[in-house]
Amino acid sequence: MERVFHLNLDDVLRLVRAALESGDQAQAVALIQALRPADQADVFSELADQEQASLLPNLAPEDSADILEELEDEEAVELAEALSDADLARIVNEMEPDEAADLLGDLPDARVQAILDSMEDSEEVRPLLMHADESAGGLMTTDFLVLRPRMRVSEALMAIRQLAPKDSAETLYNLYVVDAAGILRGVVSLYQLLQADPAARVGDVMDVDVLSARADADREVAAGLMTRYDLLSLPVVDSAHRLLGIITHDDFVDIVEEETTEDIQLMGGSAPLAGPYLETPVLGIARKRAGWLALLFVTETLTGSVLRLFEHELAAVVSLAFFIPLLIGTGGNAGSQTTSTIIRAIATGDIRFRDGMRVLWHELRIGMLLGVAMAVIGFGRALLWGTGQNVALAVSAALLMVVTWANIMGSVLPLLATRLRIDPAIVSGPFMSTLVDATGLLIYLSVAKVILNL
Amino acid sequence: MERVFHLNLDDVLRLVRAALESGDQAQAVALIQALRPADQADVFSELADQEQASLLPNLAPEDSADILEELEDEEAVELAEALSDADLARIVNEMEPDEAADLLGDLPDARVQAILDSMEDSEEVRPLLMHADESAGGLMTTDFLVLRPRMRVSEALMAIRQLAPKDSAETLYNLYVVDAAGILRGVVSLYQLLQADPAARVGDVMDVDVLSARADADREVAAGLMTRYDLLSLPVVDSAHRLLGIITHDDFVDIVEEETTEDIQLMGGSAPLAGPYLETPVLGIARKRAGWLALLFVTETLTGSVLRLFEHELAAVVSLAFFIPLLIGTGGNAGSQTTSTIIRAIATGDIRFRDGMRVLWHELRIGMLLGVAMAVIGFGRALLWGTGQNVALAVSAALLMVVTWANIMGSVLPLLATRLRIDPAIVSGPFMSTLVDATGLLIYLSVAKVILNL
Repeated sequence: MERVFHLNLDDVLRLVRAALESGDQAQAVALIQALRPADQADVFSELADQEQASLLPNLAPEDSADILEELEDEEAVELAEALSDADLARIVNEMEPDEAADLLGDLPDARVQAILDSMEDSEEVRPLLMHADESAGGLMTTDFLVLRPRMRVSEALMAIRQLAPKDSAETLYNLYVVDAAGILRGVVSLYQLLQADPAARVGDVMDVDVLSARADADREVAAGLMTRYDLLSLPVVDSAHRLLGIITHDDFVDIVEEETTEDIQLMGGSAPLAGPYLETPVLGIARKRAGWLALLFVTETLTGSVLRLFEHELAAVVSLAFFIPLLIGTGGNAGSQTTSTIIRAIATGDIRFRDGMRVLWHELRIGMLLGVAMAVIGFGRALLWGTGQNVALAVSAALLMVVTWANIMGSVLPLLATRLRIDPAIVSGPFMSTLVDATGLLIYLSVAKVILNL
Repeated sequence: MERVFHLNLDDVLRLVRAALESGDQAQAVALIQALRPADQADVFSELADQEQASLLPNLAPEDSADILEELEDEEAVELAEALSDADLARIVNEMEPDEAADLLGDLPDARVQAILDSMEDSEEVRPLLMHADESAGGLMTTDFLVLRPRMRVSEALMAIRQLAPKDSAETLYNLYVVDAAGILRGVVSLYQLLQADPAARVGDVMDVDVLSARADADREVAAGLMTRYDLLSLPVVDSAHRLLGIITHDDFVDIVEEETTEDIQLMGGSAPLAGPYLETPVLGIARKRAGWLALLFVTETLTGSVLRLFEHELAAVVSLAFFIPLLIGTGGNAGSQTTSTIIRAIATGDIRFRDGMRVLWHELRIGMLLGVAMAVIGFGRALLWGTGQNVALAVSAALLMVVTWANIMGSVLPLLATRLRIDPAIVSGPFMSTLVDATGLLIYLSVAKVILNL
């Protein structure tokens, strides 16, 4: 059967559901097996829990393994919980060892033992269960072929033909070379082997200059190396530089996506969610947001204190109050614009802490330019409201100062955070607008007090 | 010489500068050539323009080509402008065709003609100059080997050994198979070829189910396919499905990074910058931000109108005004939290327009939960300020409503944007806080009017 990827996935889902409803499991299985793994997982996750659990054991174990790998972690765990130990062991056996370890790491210990014991081939998974999910060790696979420096190229190619683990083509584009002690000595690409003299030694063909990550390194460090140096895979080593595993392209793509999601959620002023949005319960999401929202709320109450401080001036010139949201809102917007650009430039390595003065000088001028523009528009708007020239002047001057101030804070604070080894994404847009609300108000009312002689 | 990547890059830079100052170009060249391309570009971009232009022609053309490829576009163009046509042609000749086309596309037409004419090998670059930078065609390389279905596996391997373009290992992990008319018929991995019977036909070994992108497709579409299906490369075809080129892993990584940067800048309320932050002039950045800032400013003036509308009530109970920034600020924060999560979930494909009702129901409950929490804290704070129970009650009720309202808007608007084929990132945090400022104020003062019986 040809793959049906040219059908809309919704159509496939409808066909699968119809097959299940008419009791034709075989047809449902055939439809799902004709899809690519990512699409299999998509269709599968739309089925009812009960349909999933009854269908999965009927698929070929390789396909079931693909689906469990592609499903979001929470969904995979839920599904695993509905399967018998024997069924699950058969499927886990076919999973990539790193994905298998991730899944088992989320199941109760007693069950993990039972499953490992009934697996054909659990030695690859067992050591992986020790590594933290967020570390390089937690991402690596242990199912790969190593070469020795004294092997001949022809022997290496023969080994690849005969011994390479099935379904692991992605571990074969770069082959790592270790010595008798298991220490990583070099890397050679499949292509280099193919072009080399078959009688040459691997040690003479390999590149000795091989990048690697320590198993306990943060996964972001590993992903950063792979991005910067365009690596298809990255070897993971222990403190003695012994090769433990390799991180492959597909895992790399997943980390980059997850880390970006975390950053964006943080930049929106929420602690990162552990899983995909719709699968995270309402209470879970609310809890991730409540901390920041409450902290910002309490900080925001400073605005009330500032207002009370200027109660007399506000009572004297009531029209001053009309411009409060406009002023602090615009300052917050300018701060958000700045901070999102700076945070991203830090994340991509465009700017570092040592660039601080250049960034500050950049934003100072940008802030003044934008501040002047807002001051001009604000002056016109105030006159149109008939507030008189002096109030208009106070609003204008305050706009210029608040926008400049917001740009300075928006650039300096993320850089300071990196210096303090805090994720700069913490200087989120909401953080900036809250900061600028209280300080901007202080600036505005002080300026007004001077200009209006109150 | 071994690579010096274990030295700090700052140290290398210092050594290069010292070598240049003492007139020892050879030493500077040796230092730079010992680095990896990404590091070469980093060190190089820290040198003065004049140092760069004098150093580049002394490097091996392959290294110069690597550096020009790794530099940011603007820097590469600047450097290219400082080189002679002959020097530049020699370097461009060594660049990947897609990178060469990108660079030439940014130079004046007359110069491009001169450079193409003096290149040894310009046929690969010429056709690429027709494709838009942001399209799949603009990303592909044309320097690759194709196989024919009737070739034997042994012949294919021989061709790879002998004919494969040098320095293009990344185009060789997946080999594409075309028929006599150039139409894409299948794909086979180097590993599959190696494991296959040497006497078999490529057409019998290849996978006929090959994903591809049209040359005129947006580059985001191409990157999306590569992410979803974990592809190391993607073939690019014309409308007749003829193979035109392939997108390789390194280009894919670059697109994902650039597209994320654009999204984050947009989410911060700024039009995306064309290049890296520090290389974009102050006026350029200010122009990217001014449009949104001014638009939001004008929208924000609605808050003034709302305040004037309730002038009588505000004068009657002055303490109501103390809570204005607190209320609208908290609403804006809640809106930013929601919208950043939703925008990202849309970008990763976690939610689609058809999930609208589920998302709305999710956020409605989250908003009410967070609203109740803020209402409780707000009530306490208001009592502490001695505003009296009624004002505290009005503030609490308004907080609950404003936060819920912000969560609803923050989830519905990005989904609506996707429906209208607008980038949902446009519903930025600043957009949300501005929207919530005016509407939140209206809610607050209306509630206060009713509760306080004004």
